[in-house]
Amino acid sequence: MPANLQIVLDNRPTGEASEANFRIAQTETPPLKDGHVLVRHHYLSLDPYMRGRMSESKSYAVPQPLGQVMQGGTVGEVVESRHPGYTPGDKVVGFGGWQHFSVADASQPGSLRKVDTTHVPLSHYLGAVGMPGVTAWYGLVKIIEPKAGNTLVVTAASGAVGSAFGALAKARGCRVVGVAGGEDKCRYVTEELGFDACIDYRTHPDASSIGKALDAACPDGIDGHFENVGGYIFDAVLDRMNAFGRIALCGLISGYDGQPIPLANPRALLVSRLRIEGFIVSEHMEVWPEALRELGGLVGSGKLRPRESVAQGLEAAPAAFIGLLKGRNFGKQLVKVI
Amino acid sequence: MPANLQIVLDNRPTGEASEANFRIAQTETPPLKDGHVLVRHHYLSLDPYMRGRMSESKSYAVPQPLGQVMQGGTVGEVVESRHPGYTPGDKVVGFGGWQHFSVADASQPGSLRKVDTTHVPLSHYLGAVGMPGVTAWYGLVKIIEPKAGNTLVVTAASGAVGSAFGALAKARGCRVVGVAGGEDKCRYVTEELGFDACIDYRTHPDASSIGKALDAACPDGIDGHFENVGGYIFDAVLDRMNAFGRIALCGLISGYDGQPIPLANPRALLVSRLRIEGFIVSEHMEVWPEALRELGGLVGSGKLRPRESVAQGLEAAPAAFIGLLKGRNFGKQLVKVI
Repeated sequence: MPANLQIVLDNRPTGEASEANFRIAQTETPPLKDGHVLVRHHYLSLDPYMRGRMSESKSYAVPQPLGQVMQGGTVGEVVESRHPGYTPGDKVVGFGGWQHFSVADASQPGSLRKVDTTHVPLSHYLGAVGMPGVTAWYGLVKIIEPKAGNTLVVTAASGAVGSAFGALAKARGCRVVGVAGGEDKCRYVTEELGFDACIDYRTHPDASSIGKALDAACPDGIDGHFENVGGYIFDAVLDRMNAFGRIALCGLISGYDGQPIPLANPRALLVSRLRIEGFIVSEHMEVWPEALRELGGLVGSGKLRPRESVAQGLEAAPAAFIGLLKGRNFGKQLVKVI
Repeated sequence: MPANLQIVLDNRPTGEASEANFRIAQTETPPLKDGHVLVRHHYLSLDPYMRGRMSESKSYAVPQPLGQVMQGGTVGEVVESRHPGYTPGDKVVGFGGWQHFSVADASQPGSLRKVDTTHVPLSHYLGAVGMPGVTAWYGLVKIIEPKAGNTLVVTAASGAVGSAFGALAKARGCRVVGVAGGEDKCRYVTEELGFDACIDYRTHPDASSIGKALDAACPDGIDGHFENVGGYIFDAVLDRMNAFGRIALCGLISGYDGQPIPLANPRALLVSRLRIEGFIVSEHMEVWPEALRELGGLVGSGKLRPRESVAQGLEAAPAAFIGLLKGRNFGKQLVKVI
């Protein structure tokens, strides 16, 4: 029963989330029951959806309980097993939370998944070849349904979801335009990820200004859009959608930390006969195997080169999470806990 | 060559549309070419979409040209024919515009359609058994795709589209809740159209107030919504949609006459994984025969009893149209020109 450090949610944010919403706690890992597996985490995944769970308002997931370990995706290594399918040393993806160790009931389907780290580094199973990658895949393939030659836009393009979206869209013969914050991110998006263009929203502080940049980058208009951010960038994209365009609504991170940001001109949905659909990838488990196969192939072949921001040590998780909400990360935000 | 009175668009509105945007003009009907048919109009259709065409801003249709007859749907009677399929006396639906006579090229598919007035009065082919009815059908059947027992909401419930929507939804075993302006309209919606409930938005001037009324009328939440109006009513509906709800976006009339009205909380689309789709029924001609069959049956059997507001005389068209934009009509707004 190793000692186990955890980050727990201490109190709910009023307005912006802050490090003071969290505290560190120490427990012991419980003894294993039949079918259970003890995992030592290597990396924790930090994801924008966690902000929603910190509040009690209506969201798609039950709120994160106060005083309990923050929930979240993890990769690690089996250290003890009472399940015949797992042996110490196995590399696994799970939902172990912000702590050093977790116990998973491996007899529950979906609770733990063994992964092969021959061609794909373990950490990427939390990003490009994990939930964020499948998120991009679902929005692209099942909602946007692009044709070769279509122009697609994605916000937060250098992030875990956006970067996977770009590679998947290029593989389908689309023109892909990213939106990201800062010169470095934009350079990575075009030079390393192979996007056709990237717009630095920091140099375009309003819808009219970013609209001109979109006009230049999308001379044939926009056929499909993958939205992670919301706010004025989304408004500018909506006004430039071609008839019958499709919008996969994955996130609205710009409005998570305060009042909701309105959509300025819903009439664009009508005028251009758009379809917009919100989704949560964990509700579409049927696509995961196919999506993960394609994403693993893209990473293995070097066509998708995901960036990671890695915070060191469990104690760094709260600050790294706040940074993620403010766009301070570059690529997938992880915490290395070993 | 009978003399022909017309209403033409004289100038474009700046802000609210007004009668001063129109003027009357006199012409003669041209001599008929082979394949052409001369129609004497009985009724003109007035529809909210016409407001969009009066402006030059981006819309789904080309703007109405200045100085030319206002375009729009018409029903009438063939008075002269050089097409073998049409004989004087035939009752026809067409797109003849705001004038007493029109010449249709009957050899063009879709330009003219003969109708049977045995069970369905001629005017209803501009409403329940015409474009507005098919609009309701498409949004319900192709976008909302309801299941029996679902709760559906429609705004402008007493109008041509809303009333057809209610009858079609009841025929599919749904609970249907209307929103309309005024006690009389609400009474008609529940007592004559058979809606399960109707909310008078005039007694609920903001999203919070109408939200409480929606909570009372939709105790199991809202599974599908058909939007004609936009603004705070739409905001209140969005916040009450059940997971995976569908929204058919047909119109946003509350914002047509000025600045676009924002959507207050797009996050609801994400939180409840909603799909919203804008559409224009004239782009889905493939559904018209099936939809018109069902609508004709509902009207013929008395299950759908459409109301009409009939303005008398061509000269009354502009004022009637402005009244329609302000919700002064009760049911389908027509102009009787004979």
